[in-house]
Amino acid sequence: MTATNKQYRLAARPVGVPKDSDWEFATESIPEIGEGEVLVENHYASLDPAMRGWMNDAKSYIAPVGIGEVMRAGTVGEVVKSNNPGFAVGDFVSGMLGIQQYGVSNGKDLTKVDPTLAPLENYLGGLGMPGLTAYFGLLDVGAVKEGDTVLVSGAAGAVGSIVGQIAKIKGARAVGIAGGADKCAYVVEELGFDACVDYKSESFLEDLKEPLSTGVDVYFDNVGGEILDIALARLNRHARVAICGAISQYNNTTPVRGPQNYLSLLVQHARMEGFVVFDYVKRYGEGIRDLAQWHAEGKLKFRNHVETGIENFPATLLKLFTGENFGKLVLKLKED
Amino acid sequence: MTATNKQYRLAARPVGVPKDSDWEFATESIPEIGEGEVLVENHYASLDPAMRGWMNDAKSYIAPVGIGEVMRAGTVGEVVKSNNPGFAVGDFVSGMLGIQQYGVSNGKDLTKVDPTLAPLENYLGGLGMPGLTAYFGLLDVGAVKEGDTVLVSGAAGAVGSIVGQIAKIKGARAVGIAGGADKCAYVVEELGFDACVDYKSESFLEDLKEPLSTGVDVYFDNVGGEILDIALARLNRHARVAICGAISQYNNTTPVRGPQNYLSLLVQHARMEGFVVFDYVKRYGEGIRDLAQWHAEGKLKFRNHVETGIENFPATLLKLFTGENFGKLVLKLKED
Repeated sequence: MTATNKQYRLAARPVGVPKDSDWEFATESIPEIGEGEVLVENHYASLDPAMRGWMNDAKSYIAPVGIGEVMRAGTVGEVVKSNNPGFAVGDFVSGMLGIQQYGVSNGKDLTKVDPTLAPLENYLGGLGMPGLTAYFGLLDVGAVKEGDTVLVSGAAGAVGSIVGQIAKIKGARAVGIAGGADKCAYVVEELGFDACVDYKSESFLEDLKEPLSTGVDVYFDNVGGEILDIALARLNRHARVAICGAISQYNNTTPVRGPQNYLSLLVQHARMEGFVVFDYVKRYGEGIRDLAQWHAEGKLKFRNHVETGIENFPATLLKLFTGENFGKLVLKLKED
Repeated sequence: MTATNKQYRLAARPVGVPKDSDWEFATESIPEIGEGEVLVENHYASLDPAMRGWMNDAKSYIAPVGIGEVMRAGTVGEVVKSNNPGFAVGDFVSGMLGIQQYGVSNGKDLTKVDPTLAPLENYLGGLGMPGLTAYFGLLDVGAVKEGDTVLVSGAAGAVGSIVGQIAKIKGARAVGIAGGADKCAYVVEELGFDACVDYKSESFLEDLKEPLSTGVDVYFDNVGGEILDIALARLNRHARVAICGAISQYNNTTPVRGPQNYLSLLVQHARMEGFVVFDYVKRYGEGIRDLAQWHAEGKLKFRNHVETGIENFPATLLKLFTGENFGKLVLKLKED
């Protein structure tokens, strides 16, 4: 156990891509806990596209991170002190304890996890928020059914990779969009998608034709921008578009690009519905149960991209926006 | 009965606003009818924003009007010859017989209407496609429920005026957007909307604040463009956006303006769904029955804007796009 609590706090609201000066690196003493509280040593933090939105001073589904506050992030770690009868020292828990080595919680926002069933970092990925996002987004918002063609962007990413695999489990065809031949090969060969198209290729639009020759029944959108328009132009009748994110737009300094092809919704009697995983908090148990079972059965594979060292947080976060990460991006906070 | 059949045919695909040279005015002899066919003298033609879309050579919910073909339009008229046992001379029928004085039909696309129950032109408006569009769009796509705040653009128009009135019938609040103080006064004082805001006013955004202080549960969109974005920014949780049309975009020579605020759907777990009235053809009977009953009970008012003379078709159609019409725009084709 280190004697101090290193942390990243939000220093300024970013304009465009977050800069180093938007962050304050602080080293504090490890906090004391009060009645009913627990102290958690964070082993891993989850780095997610949504974090960019939390840095803006805008009304959203969750309050912005305040200037001077520890940056919000999903975490998984070990209880090292407890004044809460629900948690014992040595318990492993996931929560939202932020980019810091130690966090205090009253326990209400913590979920116990079992590190003997799966590596701890999976509880930030396939068995955590990204897995649940894919699960509810595809099954509830996307209402996928057997025989559908499901198109998903960010197909090698934390959420997209799981969307396509669940589509296959449900008897649908899965077509991915990802950046680069290596990611596309992984998506098809390792994850079992029917096809994956490289959006960085010059022949991208041509390459989409064959896998989407029967149109799109469900489009699961993680990226927004031009790819959303491309998907809208290929919708089938009564198609569903699940809006999970718009990573292409999060660092914009110009207005968001709205989907020019939205009138496809009218022509095809299709719908576009947005969601965030927190909308499904009451059903997390159901989701985790299915995800864990499919994973145990070998039907659902997870890939984590682990970077190490809290000092590397600002640079590591940016990998999400350049697409440098390959798999669920997590930052190891615990020092060996 | 005139001895000839005056008609407008599509001469060219318009770029932007349709020009006179996009039309061919023709005078033909009245067609002969074959086995099973009827000849209808069209009394009125319906002029609708959707007609602009039918003039484009683009895949849509319905085939484009071919170059050289009579312009497609909803019509109401009288059977003047019949070789079809289902129709007698003197029957009044609605159909899609186009911008011409006489049309031939095999009867399958004709619906008998009763001119003693309502003026004939109402069967092109409140008791026709616009009424049905409002009915299914608000009740099925919009899923309006008691206590909702329903915002509708084009509130003085053929569809919007009925949307707000049905919202009131269903116990919702109705807020309209229309162009001009006279239209807004009509919408509130005659039609009973709770409020109507003039989008041509400089204080438009300010004027919206009070009537939308509790947000928007259903937005019924007839116009697209900037007003769609304004509505998206004001959605409540689980709001529904019914995309009925986008009249602001139909004459664009630049790309359609996509809704920049579409990520409101994500934040609010809201959905945007498009439709066309033809999707509900199997339920037209139900819709007409309710609309006619509400109209008979005085709960639902219709206003028609009648222009006269087939020669005036090209100029009259343009009134839709300038907003010069006040009420359902119909063109009287029958010469007195």
